[in-house]
Amino acid sequence: MGLVSPQVYTHSSAFPLRCGETLDGFELVFETYGRLNAARSNAILVCHALSGHHHAAGYHSLDDNRPGWWDNCIGPGKPIDTDRFFVVCPNNLGGCHGSTGPTSVNPRTGEPFGPDFPVVTVEDWVETQALLADHLGIEVFAAVLGGSLGGMQAMRWATDYPDRLHAAVLIACAARLSAQNIAFNEIARQAIVSDPEFHGGNYRQRGVNPDLGLMLARMVGHVTYLSDDGMRQRFGRQLKSGDIETAQDVEFQVESYLHHQGRSFSRRFDANSYVLMTRALDYFDPAREHDDDLVKALASATCRFCVISFTTDWRFSVERSKELVDALIAAGKNVASAIIESEHGHDSFLLNVPRYFDVLRAYLGRIATEAVDAP
Amino acid sequence: MGLVSPQVYTHSSAFPLRCGETLDGFELVFETYGRLNAARSNAILVCHALSGHHHAAGYHSLDDNRPGWWDNCIGPGKPIDTDRFFVVCPNNLGGCHGSTGPTSVNPRTGEPFGPDFPVVTVEDWVETQALLADHLGIEVFAAVLGGSLGGMQAMRWATDYPDRLHAAVLIACAARLSAQNIAFNEIARQAIVSDPEFHGGNYRQRGVNPDLGLMLARMVGHVTYLSDDGMRQRFGRQLKSGDIETAQDVEFQVESYLHHQGRSFSRRFDANSYVLMTRALDYFDPAREHDDDLVKALASATCRFCVISFTTDWRFSVERSKELVDALIAAGKNVASAIIESEHGHDSFLLNVPRYFDVLRAYLGRIATEAVDAP
Repeated sequence: MGLVSPQVYTHSSAFPLRCGETLDGFELVFETYGRLNAARSNAILVCHALSGHHHAAGYHSLDDNRPGWWDNCIGPGKPIDTDRFFVVCPNNLGGCHGSTGPTSVNPRTGEPFGPDFPVVTVEDWVETQALLADHLGIEVFAAVLGGSLGGMQAMRWATDYPDRLHAAVLIACAARLSAQNIAFNEIARQAIVSDPEFHGGNYRQRGVNPDLGLMLARMVGHVTYLSDDGMRQRFGRQLKSGDIETAQDVEFQVESYLHHQGRSFSRRFDANSYVLMTRALDYFDPAREHDDDLVKALASATCRFCVISFTTDWRFSVERSKELVDALIAAGKNVASAIIESEHGHDSFLLNVPRYFDVLRAYLGRIATEAVDAP
Repeated sequence: MGLVSPQVYTHSSAFPLRCGETLDGFELVFETYGRLNAARSNAILVCHALSGHHHAAGYHSLDDNRPGWWDNCIGPGKPIDTDRFFVVCPNNLGGCHGSTGPTSVNPRTGEPFGPDFPVVTVEDWVETQALLADHLGIEVFAAVLGGSLGGMQAMRWATDYPDRLHAAVLIACAARLSAQNIAFNEIARQAIVSDPEFHGGNYRQRGVNPDLGLMLARMVGHVTYLSDDGMRQRFGRQLKSGDIETAQDVEFQVESYLHHQGRSFSRRFDANSYVLMTRALDYFDPAREHDDDLVKALASATCRFCVISFTTDWRFSVERSKELVDALIAAGKNVASAIIESEHGHDSFLLNVPRYFDVLRAYLGRIATEAVDAP
């Protein structure tokens, strides 16, 4: 995508949240790639996952050494082809990469929200994204697309704004978290809130940061995003240092890798945002409002669906995607699905797994023909 | 088993460890159930897992409200039948339930060992257990048996003391930990050592305890001992408190359960012991000394083997047990194996899963006929 710059959408009026609290307004930082066509029919909304943000593709400067998080997938000729599509990717409300969130100043107090930032839900996110679409003059998205927590947003788009999208692409997703998922999220939250530098979420005022808690939270998350087989191939039992014969100063490669991942995450992610985002994940459960009947929950959707899952993903397993596909079929929806062989676990949704990218390219190609070229 | 009392074996001479350090001596606390027969041929050694101890069956007093950790399996008429067998279960060296470990006084300093307790390995444990067997006058065990880390000890018994056991029963076990296993152990260790109350392992001297770190460590461990399906059936998405509609004060049942498990563990387990035990798990790798060839590593064994695994155990999966069985077959050993359907994950090895207990009963019955009744 070359050089890209974030933009900001400012919503200046009151925004009531599902939790009952109201924000006086909010900002969403977002990026766009490609060009919106004259018919405004070629827009794709990319919804990010737990630790993602608006910077999905391209570089921010010439000496930027890392592109956006999905640069392998978004760009000219790539699966999400910016020669055909206009791609929009916002940072979610409550995030820590520029959109209004716990690190923002609360206009009512003049202090950062910190732990007082209200609880946000997937439904709130989708509503803010719809306001952003209004602002950009996009009435109907050709597709709304996301992996993991991003897929949950795409699912909610399909049911909450049925007239505003042609297709929803749900990748490595689930209709709701399992008890095991919630358990891992809660361990991550406990690691953060029990770090003495957390100070009940008021760490910034004290000039400190719960680095160790965030590091642990990320280590837990990271292990669950990889697969046992993938880790075996990548790290095995290789040592980084020490002597296993005498059991002295042993550090396995996998330990070193996780420490590095954890430390780097604690420098770039806000702890209050992490707690908030994991709660949004846990609480997501569209069937709950419909007597736990997912078929009923999906009834209002009119878009096409594409559901993609990965064989070694145990955090959002193939089984969970099958439940989703079955419910979509039972609800009489147009649904395509693919189960992709991959050794990379949940992380697969971010990676260039050839058959995955082929499926995505083919599906979006059809969407382009249907919704963009001949809308 | 009714009322039981722990006993203590004192080894008063120097004991060199694999790590190069030497203990001036050590004590092992242990319990026995049943009676050693005149031929001394009916002894079974039960090796405990990560957080286990010597109190495997029976009660310590009349108002004791919890029996030993494997009371469902050890006793008259139970799978490990104390009408036929004399069962020995020690607490491992480095533990925190009475055997010499980090909470013991270092005779050289007059202070508790704390973090200075030397690194111990599975091989060290097996050697101390052999000394205990000498003390009890047991030349040959009818069986050495254990689940998880206990199975690793049984495996090492088979190769290190081939003449001293008739059978090794390896339950929910692996020939070595995978990168994912090591990763979870390292997260648990990091949770402990990054707790500010850990003080580099010198928490007791300061009158504190790394409760939060131990709680987190146990929560991580516990989730990995259960299965996704088992947790779904047991907890699902049931709430303990709060209102998910408004996302206020929500606590899921699974969160509440894990908090309780974690808190209760932090009161009963020593942090230095936990770190030490997880390292022993990580370092265990008998094939390493034999060019990573497990078949060669098992060559010295002469006993019968029984290998048992559980379908939903993802921490020590069926696949790992299959590798073990294949290596035992390739090494020309006498091996029986069973894969047990169970929804309880790794924890299955502690539970009364009927087919599992049937297999154990039948196998040990044959051992009794072969090694005890007609030795």
